[in-house]
Amino acid sequence: MSEMMSREALEAALRAIGEERYHSRHPFQILLQEGRLTREQVQAWALNRYYYQSMIPVKDSFILARLGTVELRREWRERIIDHDGSESERGGIEKWIALTDGVGLDRDYVMSGRGILPGTRFAVDAYVHFVRERSLLEAIASSLTELFSPSVIGVRNKGMLAHYDFISKETLAYFDKRPVQAKRDSDFALTYCLDHARNRQEQEAVIDALKFKCQVLWTQLDALYHAYVEPGHLPFDAWRPGEAGTAGESESRAA
Amino acid sequence: MSEMMSREALEAALRAIGEERYHSRHPFQILLQEGRLTREQVQAWALNRYYYQSMIPVKDSFILARLGTVELRREWRERIIDHDGSESERGGIEKWIALTDGVGLDRDYVMSGRGILPGTRFAVDAYVHFVRERSLLEAIASSLTELFSPSVIGVRNKGMLAHYDFISKETLAYFDKRPVQAKRDSDFALTYCLDHARNRQEQEAVIDALKFKCQVLWTQLDALYHAYVEPGHLPFDAWRPGEAGTAGESESRAA
Repeated sequence: MSEMMSREALEAALRAIGEERYHSRHPFQILLQEGRLTREQVQAWALNRYYYQSMIPVKDSFILARLGTVELRREWRERIIDHDGSESERGGIEKWIALTDGVGLDRDYVMSGRGILPGTRFAVDAYVHFVRERSLLEAIASSLTELFSPSVIGVRNKGMLAHYDFISKETLAYFDKRPVQAKRDSDFALTYCLDHARNRQEQEAVIDALKFKCQVLWTQLDALYHAYVEPGHLPFDAWRPGEAGTAGESESRAA
Repeated sequence: MSEMMSREALEAALRAIGEERYHSRHPFQILLQEGRLTREQVQAWALNRYYYQSMIPVKDSFILARLGTVELRREWRERIIDHDGSESERGGIEKWIALTDGVGLDRDYVMSGRGILPGTRFAVDAYVHFVRERSLLEAIASSLTELFSPSVIGVRNKGMLAHYDFISKETLAYFDKRPVQAKRDSDFALTYCLDHARNRQEQEAVIDALKFKCQVLWTQLDALYHAYVEPGHLPFDAWRPGEAGTAGESESRAA
C-alpha cells in the first residue's frame, strides 16, 4: 500500500471525483436542464427521484444508529429533520411531493412507489445497504456527493424555469434550502473523513465510497434514459406516460 | 383480500409470469441468440453475468441458513454443490470461467469483479438482500425463474453455436447440466411454494417474488444493452472492449 496522502491531497482527490463523475454530467441531466425533455420525461424523472428522496432519512437513520456519540448524532439528525420536516415546516420529502404535484403526477401514486423503475429501486436500495454494511467511515464518505450539489442546483433550476412552462418557482421549492443544507452537511462529512481516515487504505476506502455513491446517482439516470429516452425499452410495471399516476387519471384506474 | 387461488391457478399464474417476463424475451437476449452481437458485446455479457453466477451460492447459503430442517437443507445444498463443484467435478462457476476464457477474457480480471456494470452489481446484490430480508417463502419463490430456463438454454446455445465462430460446445459447457439441475430445483421450489402459501396474501407474495426475480434478470440485460449496444453510454470504470481484461492485454495493464 502506498504512503498516506496529505489532507489536502485527499480533499483534492475527492473533489476531482465530483468534477468527473457527479451526475450533473449525465446525458439525462443535460437534457433536463437544457429543456430538451418532454413533460412526460420530466414526470418520469420526478417520479423516480421521489423514491431516492424518500429513502434518504432511512439511510441517515442507519448512520445515526452507528455514530456512537451524542455530539455526532446531534449533527447528523439535522439531515433527517431537513427531509422529514416538522409540524411548522415542510420537509424535503413534502417539497418533493410539491414538485411531483407541480408536474402533474398523482400524489398517492407517487408515494406508493408503484411504477418506479427497477433500476431506480436497485440503485437506491444499494445505497441503503451500503451504509449498513460498510464501515462507518465509508457510510459517511458516501454522503460526500453533497459537496457538488450546490452549484448544480442553480444551473438546473435556472434551465428548468427557462425552458419548461409547466415548471414554476414554487414547484422547485425543494431546492431553495438545499444549497445551504448541503454545504453544512458536506462540510461536516468532509472534515469527519479527513480526520478519521488514518492510513492509506482508509483514504482509498473514502475515495471508493464516493465513487460508489456517484454510481448510485449515475445509474438512476442511466435507467431513466434507457426507459424514457431510448424508444422501446420501458420495463414491465414501470409508469407509462399518460397512464395511471398522472393526476386526474388515477381515479378511474383505481375504480 | 380476494379468496385463495387453487393450487393449479397459482401454478398457472406463475408460469404466465415467466411467459411474459423471463429474460428470454429481452432485446439483448434476442440479439445474443440471433448472432447479432459483436464479439465484444458477447464478452461484456459473459463478464457481467459472471458476477451473477458468482453470487448464486452466496444467495443459496443465506437461504440454507434459514430453512430450519435437515431435510430442506439436504435438498437445497445441492444447488451450492452444483455451483461450487468438488475436487472431482467442475462446478457451475468454474464452467462459467471456461466460458469467459473461451470468449477471450482474462480470468483474473473476470474473477476480480472489476469492470462489471454498476447496474449488474446493484441488481445482483438486490437479489442477495431479498433472500435475507423477505420471508422464507418469498426467498424460495424468487428462485422460480428456473422453471423457465431449460427451454431457453437450448435455443440460446443453438443460436450461439450457429452464429459465432468464437463459441464452441466446450465454451458453453456450463449449460450442459443446467436443464436437469434447473428442473430438479424448480420442481422442488414450486412444490414448496404451492404447499406453503397458505392464504391469498402469501400467494400474492409468491407471485411478487417471482416478478421481482424477473426484474433482477431483466435489469441486468437493460444495463448491458444501454452500456454496450446504445452508443455513448458506457459508465465510468466499466470494462471497455479491447482494454484491460481482454486476455493477453491485461498483463501490460497490470504492470
